[in-house]
Order: sequence, then structure tokens, then C-alpha cells
Amino acid sequence: MIRIDAADDPRVAAFTRIRERDLTSRDGCFIAEGEVVLTGLLQRSSFLIQAVLLAERHEQRLGAAVQAATAAPVYLAGQQTLDGIAGFPLHRGVLALCRKPEPVSAADLLGTAPADAVVACAFGLSNHDNIGGLFRNAAAFGAHAVLLDGRCGDPFYRKAIRVSAGAALTTPHAVVEDELDLIAGLKSAGFRLLALSPAGRSSLRQVRPAGRVALLLGAEGPGLSDAVMSRAETVRIEMAPGVDSLNVATAAAVALHHLSGRVEA
Amino acid sequence: MIRIDAADDPRVAAFTRIRERDLTSRDGCFIAEGEVVLTGLLQRSSFLIQAVLLAERHEQRLGAAVQAATAAPVYLAGQQTLDGIAGFPLHRGVLALCRKPEPVSAADLLGTAPADAVVACAFGLSNHDNIGGLFRNAAAFGAHAVLLDGRCGDPFYRKAIRVSAGAALTTPHAVVEDELDLIAGLKSAGFRLLALSPAGRSSLRQVRPAGRVALLLGAEGPGLSDAVMSRAETVRIEMAPGVDSLNVATAAAVALHHLSGRVEA
Repeated sequence: MIRIDAADDPRVAAFTRIRERDLTSRDGCFIAEGEVVLTGLLQRSSFLIQAVLLAERHEQRLGAAVQAATAAPVYLAGQQTLDGIAGFPLHRGVLALCRKPEPVSAADLLGTAPADAVVACAFGLSNHDNIGGLFRNAAAFGAHAVLLDGRCGDPFYRKAIRVSAGAALTTPHAVVEDELDLIAGLKSAGFRLLALSPAGRSSLRQVRPAGRVALLLGAEGPGLSDAVMSRAETVRIEMAPGVDSLNVATAAAVALHHLSGRVEA
Repeated sequence: MIRIDAADDPRVAAFTRIRERDLTSRDGCFIAEGEVVLTGLLQRSSFLIQAVLLAERHEQRLGAAVQAATAAPVYLAGQQTLDGIAGFPLHRGVLALCRKPEPVSAADLLGTAPADAVVACAFGLSNHDNIGGLFRNAAAFGAHAVLLDGRCGDPFYRKAIRVSAGAALTTPHAVVEDELDLIAGLKSAGFRLLALSPAGRSSLRQVRPAGRVALLLGAEGPGLSDAVMSRAETVRIEMAPGVDSLNVATAAAVALHHLSGRVEA
């Protein structure tokens, strides 16, 4: 492990000004933050890790675990140096620079789906908290994959990864730029399309899942486009009178819990 | 309506340094933020509003609506003055200073509950995002009330109100300092106690709600205490293997959706 004593040490240049650089591309890399996320990476995708920067207090346990799992350099710094590198108070004290995995095509993901697969599909979901929450909930209820249209936020964005509790890195996903291409791909792979909307015709409770199912989700506010709604069965979650809607990731959790029910039945 | 041209105008002193003052008490008042929250207050609790501060662009529509519903003064300011008053960029452009309503006792809330009431009860939930999310979801699924133990965050905290989409102000709640006093109150009011935990004995899907039901929720990480768990039926949400847990407000949504099902049946 390599001790770093100055925030401008060129060996940790990739970890500087984290927040500003979140807004731009990192040349095929992303930053993972926090112990939960790093531990998940070590277990499942350690080959992605390029370098790790830890607060000195994490040396014994986390530092050793990283060295056991990867050949990536492990940098250690005191809290003040660490804050200076990151550009904000890095309370968690854990950063990893990782290579993005090769993109997977939607056709491949859908083609390999089991006969009872559920996939979660988001349209125009630009908010990174919601993207992270969707991945967390998709993983919790065993979704086969997450599909995103081109207007969605990047699951590799630091905050999306954190909110997902690491699931953004472990649940397979694919991006299909155009929403109608995404719909066409689902249909040709034999998926039943359920569009979740407060204006849905059927109540979620009436849905009896069978075969491959795709849950279609739009952003809070605009919701799904008419073009998407008209190509799917529309489903609503029953709510109390006068309530507008749920958070989209929360609505996804309620629906995915319902759709995963057949596993137990 | 009153135009304000200087950030240090004493008439808007209550709206200054919002974030710093979030951390202290406001003498029985709270700050509501954003159009969704203000509109909800105007419809249901306009008597609580003491003063409103709006960006000038909101004068015609929101300003007029406030004046129609309350005698509270409406202050208008340009965006720069507004940012200077609040102490941060106030993109939403809508603040209201409100009086907290008189606290309600848990005994009163539980005593007036219908025979099929569901109440959501949080223990040690200090995170304001989660408190806000819990209220939003409790409102969405028609919970009769939210009960909190003394270690929970304040639902009147600005961010809790915002995340709740205003539900923190409209869904009745009560605080019972000691968790076992809260449990005792629920039992004496005839509530069936369901403690939600990844280690729960029954699956949520097996629960057939009847009569008054209390859903007990602990903070992510520590969860519910052994003392609470031992006094309730413990219930888990079925998840995919290897997944730790859901966000607590999300778990509450899944459970409240299930428990509200009998309404439709």
C-alpha cells in the first residue's frame, strides 16, 4: 500500500475534484464510493478495479481485502489529505477508480432471459437517485436486468451507484437509445409489457404474471409517453384518494414485489 | 403583497439562513418549501401559515392563491434577493413560515382509528429522507397515522416535508418517547403488531390483514430492537438471495400496499 501525504500527488490525480468531474466523462471509468459498494465490487467484479484510495483507518481490514482480490494499487491518506484530494469532506473514506464493463446489448440480455424473467425498463429517468433506487429494488426482487432508454441517467454515476447500494454494478443493464426500439426488442423477445402509471387500466393486484414480463416506468411528473402507453397493458397501483403518485423507484419496488410473487407460490 | 429589495430587510428575518437554522428549533414554527407543499397547506391547513416568501415570478398565481386562503403576509423578491435571504440558491422560489400544529397524543390517534386502520410506526428512524419517504408512502396507501418513537427525526424538518411531498403535514402523527410505551399503547388499542425485518418469521405475502394493524419499522442497519421484535409478529419481505435489505421507506411502501389490499378485495 502506498502512503499519500499531499493532495496534489500525481499518483492520485484520478481521485481529485470528484464532484466537478462527476459531471463529465471519465474516459470509460467511474468512481465507486463507500465500503458497501467496494465490498460488492471485490466479491463480484474485482477485475474492474483500477486503483483504490482509502482513509488510513481502513488500512487493516479493507486495504488487505483489496490486495487479496486485485493487483490494483491501494493508496492511503490521512483524513485531511483525503478531503483535499476529493475536494469535499470524504466521511466514508473509501474511493475506487474502476473501468466500466463492456456494454451489453439489450438483445443479448433479453435473449438469455429465463422463461419467467422480469425486467425493469425506465424511460426518461434522468434523476440519479431514482436510477440508483430502481437498481437497488430490481436487485432486491430478482429482476433479470434493467433496460434504459437514452434519456435515462447513467447508472455508473457516483450517486446512482451509492443509492443503489452497489446494485447498479451487479444487476445487468443495457441502454437502447430510442424508446420504441426498446419496446420492439421486448416484444420480439416475447415479453408481456406492463406500463406502470397512476392512470393505468388494471390494478396491479389483478395482474397474474406468467411468462416473461417487462415493467415499464416513466419519470415522476411526465410519466410514460403516449407512444409507450399505447403499446402496453397499463397498470396502476391502488392508492388513497387524493394522492398523486409514489416515487418512481418506490412504485417499482411495489410492482416488482408483486411480480416476483409467483416464485414463492 | 409586499416587495422586498434587500436581503437584510427585517420583515423577512424569519426566512434568513435557512439551512443553519434548520439545525435548531424555530420556536414552534417550521419552514415549508416548494409549490407542491405550499399548495397542500393552502388546501388543508392554511391556518398554520404565518408568512410566505415568493420569487416574483410566482406573484400572479401562487401569490393570489395564498391571499385568497390566508391573512398571512406575502413577500415578493427577485431571485438574487431571495438567494441572499435564504443563504443558498432557492430555485423553487417558494418558502412559507408556518406554526406547528398542536401535538396530538398517540392515545387520541389510536382511539379514533377505524376498525380496519393501518398505522405505520417508526423506531429510531433519524434520517430525514426516510422520515419523509415514510410519510409519503403512508399517505399513498391510506394509513390512519404515523407513530414515532423519541429517537426519530422531526417530520417538520424542511427536507422531511419536501421528500414527503407534503404528507408530513397532512398525515396525522404522534411521538411516544419510549419504544415500549408505544408498543403498549398499540396493544391496549387492540392493534395487531407486525414487525418488519429481513429476519422475520412469516413472509409478508402470508399475512392476511384483519382488524387494526400496526406496521413496525426500524432504521436500516440496526433494525428493530430485540425488545420490540419479541413483542410482535415478525414479518419479512421475500427478496432475492444475497440481497441485504430494502430502503426502509421502500419496505414500508411494499408492506403498506399489501396491507391496504383488503380495501379493494
